Amino acid sequence: MHPEDRINVEEANNEFYRALESGKLELMESVWAHEEWVKCVHPGWGLITGWQRVKDSWARIFESGQKMRASPTEVTVRELGDLAWVTCTENITVFSEENFDTAQAAATNLFLKRDERWLMIHHHASAIPMIVSEDATDTIQ
Amino acid sequence: MHPEDRINVEEANNEFYRALESGKLELMESVWAHEEWVKCVHPGWGLITGWQRVKDSWARIFESGQKMRASPTEVTVRELGDLAWVTCTENITVFSEENFDTAQAAATNLFLKRDERWLMIHHHASAIPMIVSEDATDTIQ
Repeated sequence: MHPEDRINVEEANNEFYRALESGKLELMESVWAHEEWVKCVHPGWGLITGWQRVKDSWARIFESGQKMRASPTEVTVRELGDLAWVTCTENITVFSEENFDTAQAAATNLFLKRDERWLMIHHHASAIPMIVSEDATDTIQ
Repeated sequence: MHPEDRINVEEANNEFYRALESGKLELMESVWAHEEWVKCVHPGWGLITGWQRVKDSWARIFESGQKMRASPTEVTVRELGDLAWVTCTENITVFSEENFDTAQAAATNLFLKRDERWLMIHHHASAIPMIVSEDATDTIQ
């Protein structure tokens, strides 16, 4: 894989997680290809097909207005021609007024290169059950 | 997409589910590319990388020897060059002596064309919560 492409795919992947954190639908819109065949699976959801439905699902997720941190780790990028597939672990923290919840998900993200930009065409995320140690706390001290 | 390729990818996807049903590791072996970078996410598991680890995970799943039916529905196939991505709903039934359990999962499967064969290089499956109606039963009458 061309090193520059690799960096660009990783950047597109990071941009997706920044859009997720932002809670702004317009940022999510700029990350995705607006095609009727794009697909999305949120943790615990079934398969969603088509940009309009995918967009609606993000709108529903963003509806709550909850502050969220979402950072990808263990990111791997592979590419063949104009198609790239990324895997990563999503580290999600959702903040409420006094508490926060953390969760991890495994993600498969596909990107298509179009006019020198890598656009998301597929997102599949699924929860990874966490083993919480006894001295862990979910309350901000 | 060339119609023949589409059929071949769909056949490779079906072959994967037949391998899953068979519980035979050698069938699962013949479906996958044996590369150190292939990836697999089983429902509720984290990301597994590399053929050896992926193979070990299937061995662990097959260990129980439980009879299983696994049929893909809502199959969609897309392809770009030598890479194809398939989405489907997995309809899983696991049989025990007197009962059976059914479950659905959303799946993303990637295949790479090599020497005219489409080999699995990525499998991501995640449970879809089922809404069970009151008169449903999981006991064979």
